[in-house]
Amino acid sequence: MEEHIISKAIIETYIKELISHLDVDVAIAGAGPSGLTCAYYLASAGKKVAIFERHLKIGGGMPAGGMMFNRIVVQEEAKDIMKEFGIRIKKYTGNLYTADAIETISAFTLKTIKAGAKIFNLISVEDVIIREKKIAGVVINWSAVDIAHLHVDPLGVKAKVVVDATGHDSEICRIVEKKSGDNFKVTGERSMWAEKGERALLENTKEVYPGLFVCGMAANAVAGSHRMGAIFGGMILSGKEASSLILEKL
Amino acid sequence: MEEHIISKAIIETYIKELISHLDVDVAIAGAGPSGLTCAYYLASAGKKVAIFERHLKIGGGMPAGGMMFNRIVVQEEAKDIMKEFGIRIKKYTGNLYTADAIETISAFTLKTIKAGAKIFNLISVEDVIIREKKIAGVVINWSAVDIAHLHVDPLGVKAKVVVDATGHDSEICRIVEKKSGDNFKVTGERSMWAEKGERALLENTKEVYPGLFVCGMAANAVAGSHRMGAIFGGMILSGKEASSLILEKL
Amino acid sequence: MEEHIISKAIIETYIKELISHLDVDVAIAGAGPSGLTCAYYLASAGKKVAIFERHLKIGGGMPAGGMMFNRIVVQEEAKDIMKEFGIRIKKYTGNLYTADAIETISAFTLKTIKAGAKIFNLISVEDVIIREKKIAGVVINWSAVDIAHLHVDPLGVKAKVVVDATGHDSEICRIVEKKSGDNFKVTGERSMWAEKGERALLENTKEVYPGLFVCGMAANAVAGSHRMGAIFGGMILSGKEASSLILEKL
Amino acid sequence: MEEHIISKAIIETYIKELISHLDVDVAIAGAGPSGLTCAYYLASAGKKVAIFERHLKIGGGMPAGGMMFNRIVVQEEAKDIMKEFGIRIKKYTGNLYTADAIETISAFTLKTIKAGAKIFNLISVEDVIIREKKIAGVVINWSAVDIAHLHVDPLGVKAKVVVDATGHDSEICRIVEKKSGDNFKVTGERSMWAEKGERALLENTKEVYPGLFVCGMAANAVAGSHRMGAIFGGMILSGKEASSLILEKL
Amino acid sequence: MEEHIISKAIIETYIKELISHLDVDVAIAGAGPSGLTCAYYLASAGKKVAIFERHLKIGGGMPAGGMMFNRIVVQEEAKDIMKEFGIRIKKYTGNLYTADAIETISAFTLKTIKAGAKIFNLISVEDVIIREKKIAGVVINWSAVDIAHLHVDPLGVKAKVVVDATGHDSEICRIVEKKSGDNFKVTGERSMWAEKGERALLENTKEVYPGLFVCGMAANAVAGSHRMGAIFGGMILSGKEASSLILEKL
Amino acid sequence: MEEHIISKAIIETYIKELISHLDVDVAIAGAGPSGLTCAYYLASAGKKVAIFERHLKIGGGMPAGGMMFNRIVVQEEAKDIMKEFGIRIKKYTGNLYTADAIETISAFTLKTIKAGAKIFNLISVEDVIIREKKIAGVVINWSAVDIAHLHVDPLGVKAKVVVDATGHDSEICRIVEKKSGDNFKVTGERSMWAEKGERALLENTKEVYPGLFVCGMAANAVAGSHRMGAIFGGMILSGKEASSLILEKL
Amino acid sequence: MEEHIISKAIIETYIKELISHLDVDVAIAGAGPSGLTCAYYLASAGKKVAIFERHLKIGGGMPAGGMMFNRIVVQEEAKDIMKEFGIRIKKYTGNLYTADAIETISAFTLKTIKAGAKIFNLISVEDVIIREKKIAGVVINWSAVDIAHLHVDPLGVKAKVVVDATGHDSEICRIVEKKSGDNFKVTGERSMWAEKGERALLENTKEVYPGLFVCGMAANAVAGSHRMGAIFGGMILSGKEASSLILEKL
Amino acid sequence: MEEHIISKAIIETYIKELISHLDVDVAIAGAGPSGLTCAYYLASAGKKVAIFERHLKIGGGMPAGGMMFNRIVVQEEAKDIMKEFGIRIKKYTGNLYTADAIETISAFTLKTIKAGAKIFNLISVEDVIIREKKIAGVVINWSAVDIAHLHVDPLGVKAKVVVDATGHDSEICRIVEKKSGDNFKVTGERSMWAEKGERALLENTKEVYPGLFVCGMAANAVAGSHRMGAIFGGMILSGKEASSLILEKL
Repeated sequence: MEEHIISKAIIETYIKELISHLDVDVAIAGAGPSGLTCAYYLASAGKKVAIFERHLKIGGGMPAGGMMFNRIVVQEEAKDIMKEFGIRIKKYTGNLYTADAIETISAFTLKTIKAGAKIFNLISVEDVIIREKKIAGVVINWSAVDIAHLHVDPLGVKAKVVVDATGHDSEICRIVEKKSGDNFKVTGERSMWAEKGERALLENTKEVYPGLFVCGMAANAVAGSHRMGAIFGGMILSGKEASSLILEKL
Repeated sequence: MEEHIISKAIIETYIKELISHLDVDVAIAGAGPSGLTCAYYLASAGKKVAIFERHLKIGGGMPAGGMMFNRIVVQEEAKDIMKEFGIRIKKYTGNLYTADAIETISAFTLKTIKAGAKIFNLISVEDVIIREKKIAGVVINWSAVDIAHLHVDPLGVKAKVVVDATGHDSEICRIVEKKSGDNFKVTGERSMWAEKGERALLENTKEVYPGLFVCGMAANAVAGSHRMGAIFGGMILSGKEASSLILEKL
Repeated sequence: MEEHIISKAIIETYIKELISHLDVDVAIAGAGPSGLTCAYYLASAGKKVAIFERHLKIGGGMPAGGMMFNRIVVQEEAKDIMKEFGIRIKKYTGNLYTADAIETISAFTLKTIKAGAKIFNLISVEDVIIREKKIAGVVINWSAVDIAHLHVDPLGVKAKVVVDATGHDSEICRIVEKKSGDNFKVTGERSMWAEKGERALLENTKEVYPGLFVCGMAANAVAGSHRMGAIFGGMILSGKEASSLILEKL
Repeated sequence: MEEHIISKAIIETYIKELISHLDVDVAIAGAGPSGLTCAYYLASAGKKVAIFERHLKIGGGMPAGGMMFNRIVVQEEAKDIMKEFGIRIKKYTGNLYTADAIETISAFTLKTIKAGAKIFNLISVEDVIIREKKIAGVVINWSAVDIAHLHVDPLGVKAKVVVDATGHDSEICRIVEKKSGDNFKVTGERSMWAEKGERALLENTKEVYPGLFVCGMAANAVAGSHRMGAIFGGMILSGKEASSLILEKL
Repeated sequence: MEEHIISKAIIETYIKELISHLDVDVAIAGAGPSGLTCAYYLASAGKKVAIFERHLKIGGGMPAGGMMFNRIVVQEEAKDIMKEFGIRIKKYTGNLYTADAIETISAFTLKTIKAGAKIFNLISVEDVIIREKKIAGVVINWSAVDIAHLHVDPLGVKAKVVVDATGHDSEICRIVEKKSGDNFKVTGERSMWAEKGERALLENTKEVYPGLFVCGMAANAVAGSHRMGAIFGGMILSGKEASSLILEKL
Repeated sequence: MEEHIISKAIIETYIKELISHLDVDVAIAGAGPSGLTCAYYLASAGKKVAIFERHLKIGGGMPAGGMMFNRIVVQEEAKDIMKEFGIRIKKYTGNLYTADAIETISAFTLKTIKAGAKIFNLISVEDVIIREKKIAGVVINWSAVDIAHLHVDPLGVKAKVVVDATGHDSEICRIVEKKSGDNFKVTGERSMWAEKGERALLENTKEVYPGLFVCGMAANAVAGSHRMGAIFGGMILSGKEASSLILEKL
Repeated sequence: MEEHIISKAIIETYIKELISHLDVDVAIAGAGPSGLTCAYYLASAGKKVAIFERHLKIGGGMPAGGMMFNRIVVQEEAKDIMKEFGIRIKKYTGNLYTADAIETISAFTLKTIKAGAKIFNLISVEDVIIREKKIAGVVINWSAVDIAHLHVDPLGVKAKVVVDATGHDSEICRIVEKKSGDNFKVTGERSMWAEKGERALLENTKEVYPGLFVCGMAANAVAGSHRMGAIFGGMILSGKEASSLILEKL
Repeated sequence: MEEHIISKAIIETYIKELISHLDVDVAIAGAGPSGLTCAYYLASAGKKVAIFERHLKIGGGMPAGGMMFNRIVVQEEAKDIMKEFGIRIKKYTGNLYTADAIETISAFTLKTIKAGAKIFNLISVEDVIIREKKIAGVVINWSAVDIAHLHVDPLGVKAKVVVDATGHDSEICRIVEKKSGDNFKVTGERSMWAEKGERALLENTKEVYPGLFVCGMAANAVAGSHRMGAIFGGMILSGKEASSLILEKL
């Protein structure tokens, strides 16, 4: 058990995965609940999926619950998906259920990876590849490079479809707004209105630019719909909806 | 689906858990691989276990693999535990196996929570409660308070046993060294020697001060043993070993 | 006197208050002189009032006086209110009186709490809840979360009326300007002109958007009126005026 | 109502107070609960007292309650003092009472100022004046100077007695330890043990160096006693005790 | 020689000056070469002048010379003023002279103070007082307050005339542009062209808004003229020119 | 071997070079691959060339390769130049070759210096000199001055031609856009499209404003063309092309 | 008046001075009141003196007065020197006089430069040159280099005598303590006692290590004497005393 | 020329090198002049050498010359090596020669790589591998991980010999001092004495702990010898000497 053999094992097996995922069916930016759900259904359908997550941690805002109280709320409509992921939920009142935030995100993560999607954490998407007004991939870099203010060039990843699951900031859409040279606009999300925001979410989940789909909070942000509260049903359903739309297209 | 009802659901269910865990059998500091394993076996044996984790993310150094290449290595001896947790491993060479770092940590987290342990993330242990030269609990605070340089007092949690699973820094042992007033010393870990470090790990897993157990990298740090490389077999076994010793005592 | 019982006492009694104030008559953002005065008169009239204050400290700019010289000045018109709060004032010249800045803010705070309003410090208002172009509540989070750059979702609080008492930045109005999607504009305060600014203050204290009232320096900021100097009479009168307008409406 | 007249009013009345307090009976460092209580009783007894507080806010850790839950706990023994200050307390269990943290600190502050003590906030004590192994005053500076890394010399304040009420760090004692050249040692507080810590507090409240008294958490820190939890009874009693000892001496 | 007497001496004599300068003929923002020259001639003519300088150091960019090489260059036209200030200059070539940067700024500072102007360093001008579209004074604060991110209100100073001598940023003019509500625009300086910039300087030195004069680099910045190089002749002449224009008006 | 003689040797020989390069044929901002190539060919043709580089390190993004993997890729077209610089390349596939990033940049740097160009590192270009709508030089300063937030004036360098080789930000063009007062616009680069970006590069290499040439990534940024990936062929060819255009003009 | 000629003038004349001062009679670290006084008398006696000052500003703590109130106090004994420097003083009480802090430091600076000493600001002394247990010079660097965390080597300056006039930290003595390898100890200053500190100052002004003299606050810091308050008489006298001792030795 | 093919080319060729260098003859920490020289001679002799350099830039302090004046000085003794590397030197006086700092470091870097050594920049050595009191390799990590405060485990590299060429801090020796558990001490360098420091350098270049060699400034730091000035002859000779000693041993 020599140290350099351990090093070799880690580097070789990781790089094999990384190189294999330089050319994928779907590249997803953001490993929050909607991105993971979308990846889970796509991978389950046999697609090659890479998720690039800027942070070390997986799960976006979910593992912090609301105001650091690590519980989450889902509504009736998302109950079946929660069960499919094996997560324990508890009825609270009306059509609301609560669950442990860390249990939930761990289950989503585990299932998604086992379904065949590969999560690359600590990597951020800093640009897209664009060809004749169509997204053709993402441009990635170690996120540590940005935090450390280092001057390091990124690399390109080819993808048939790109998904913006980056949440409130809809980062990928913002990049396209700024750098495509086309007339693509992000409206920005409106103030909180949980119910209306949840309802709008499914409609907003769509292909917003050729080759670019958007789901979860990013979807409402692009469309200028209301923001939801700390409730995750619509997010999960949006991730699933995005996977259906993408599967139709691929 | 009104927003304040969602808020109420989250706060009420979380606080019920928090209050219930102000008096536990075992309080574990650190939700890395050894802390989680220890918690899993203790909870499975019916003990009331609270894990306090300073970061939002769960898993310590594991989800980053080695040098941000998110794969991990375990050796033959840990194979059975990996299987018990349902993690896919792949033979690399000799008695070494590789696994996906995020799959591994998600599986550990999920199983541990389902076994009944409660993870409180974003909370750090900043002191211990001590009575007549015996650890009687931990002193906790939101870790955001420290990062934001706010002047906020902590609260106390009663525990029959406290586990230091905080890794290289062996933070809880350092607190006891500094604040118990007793002649308790932390040696500090020595340079890397994967094999010898792994072997020493099990011996170093023990009750180092009345009421305080230590496991994982913190164990080697306290005893002045060699540091392991990016290999996690010994860490997992150490977590399990700690649970056995604690069960004997409780 | 066990530590975990003390912890339980603090958590339980606080959370009971917090949950009780997730649905209030009036939510006030900012515990400076105008916000406190407004809260005092509303609570005295039997309304359920929650004040959310971003900082640990109460009082906005008042406890620092002018240029860190901790004295304040009020004019004749505010004399009666100062007396109602039991604050000692001293005639300086003409219609100007001086008072100890810390005595003044302590008296305002104490009276307001005793009148029944609840102050939640260390909590910031990061968004509003909006329904059909009407403010229906506030979206709150621990302010430490923002300072520590953590990714943590906020929670929603229902309120019949929201008051922006955040001072120069008129933060709540800025949020409505940016996120309501409506044609609501904040002008921003003009340069200092103590006398004119004081006179404008009462007129600017009003309902600026359905469900949203503004008082104190935020009122002048929204309306584009002149800024006052380190004189607090108008601020206090503005807080009282806001309470009257709100009582008419509720 | 011209601006420069307002400026003049503030500067003149403040500076009159400051100059008057350059020569006092007692200079207290720290405006937390024990410092305020001590000042209240001394001022009530007719002594000239100046409190220098580094922060803008008054109250030390009290206004944040425990873990940002702004409630505090006091025990039976402190009930009378709480009543004397007009603070509403509520029985929790056994001999424990809870109170609103902000109400409590506002009441302490207000009473103390009305009793005649002067609080100078935003000013830190960065050294002591020493004469023939006796403390003869404090050396003060704007705390903004230190935060802003400016090179600005401090000024000296004469005092018959100096009180270290700076809490856990026992800052004034640390200065004397480092700069007196005498064999004076600060032990540093030990881990939490609420009951024992509370009991030790009164004994530790004393004159620790000629001219220097210590009270509140600083007292336990100097003596190496256990730290209390988020319970404030002992702190208040310690402040009162310090005032008695000082009155005997003056 | 007691410490508190020294403190009293410093505070009393300073505050007397500060209060005396709350109502002045001319308030100058910025103690660089043009501000000092302007103040020197105004004070010599018997006007009451206060210079507010944000930094501890006096002299703006002058004491650093060019690229930290602490020499400066002046041209023939400024020779007489240099001599009037007693500064040693040395012919370099053509009509260019060099001088020691620190000697130069010390001489300017000393002469200006001796002529009767008062320099208040560590104080920044954060707003102006405005009455009926006319500048009537400045709003000042300790600059440490801003650096330390403290919430402290400023104070107002009455002045018949205000001079913006803040250099490249023309800070006072920017404030008027943003906060007067009038149609006053700052163009911003253009790229370097030493000769043309120097020539434009005298023309740009003028009353740019009722009650507000501008001199030195701020003058070119307001007018959109070219920037000069590390040459100070024009700056000094501009300061003198401003003083003449102001004397005509007062 | 006395220390002050060593100091003298370094200062004298450096300053001789610096003074000699205050008046050059070509001043290049940025010592990345395109700037160095351009300098190499100009110096080889006998022109006096100064390169000003903001960082201590030479080479821009090249020495970091892609994502910190320090290899670079060049295509067939750049093969001859790579050979001219003596760099070892290795065929990868099709018309792509790889090379060691550090070998490549060292060879470029060394050859460029030996050809007679002088590199001044740690110096940034913070403005340009402009005469009658023509660039006539650059305005330089130590970059440490900016990092350390010091107030230090820059110095001017005369140049017949200025080259913007600053990469993605096209810093010099941005300065001209902002400070020339003319109608000169920088479009900003578009998203990644390696092939199209490479092809556009040569066309975009040109004189964009009288006296100002642009090459490398800055050229595409100004023209709004697509960004290339971590491929350096076009960059090198662009640097050579810029040198030809400049030689025609000089 | 071309920009590069101005640049040349500044660089050439500065560098000539710098090179000339690489070999001096006396190198003084710190341009505060004691360092300047020492330099003034040495230069007046015909010695070649270089003062290296880390900051842009000259004067140490003097220009900030006490607590940012920019007045200073001197006692009777220093009256003659103040007059020699042409500074206006005003009797306050007993043997205490006050003066304008900025007038005072400007006068000291100007006189010292005119006497022939050269001040190099923005340069810090980061080490000494030592030969056979004797100080033989100083090691200097741009202070911006340290602030900007750049890796830049320093240069050496030869000096017959070195003076530590760096104030409270006695930086040069600390370097000798740490890096000489000899048994040289700095005691560190004791708490404030203005009178005793002033009296000790003259005795502590001496050659503390072969070739190294100390004056001003650094002298008391080395000897472990009491610290003075914001009174500058002793400092000035100490600077003069140091010059006498050095002149005897040279 | 697709982007993902470019990515693949870079990743594959880099990782092949990295994996190949997980088991080397010599691992050198630090790519300054002594480390590069040592690597050059070792690689020329056919040894497999990896240099790990924490920074993006190569060359340590050399490319900044002295005080940012980018020239260097070497003495007669190093002339031959300078010539071997093809660097142009110019006689200054006596036995001193000057050279362009960037030319020098580029030549060293280029030659070393061409000789077969591999430089891995952006990677730091954070620990050593130790076996039975003998260094057996280094523990590496991306340096960005440390700057970004990420929790990421390092990897191990096997080496027959390790060289500490990290300069003044002698980082590797400090690690061995702290973490070997053996009685190994680093003395720390003494003040500057160029001549004596240069002479000591060759003697100090040696095997300081089994398997660990030290050269360049680190050698003097370990032995407590004097520090050299900005002169690089001894550093280069030390690197060569280290290579000879290592070749004897391998």
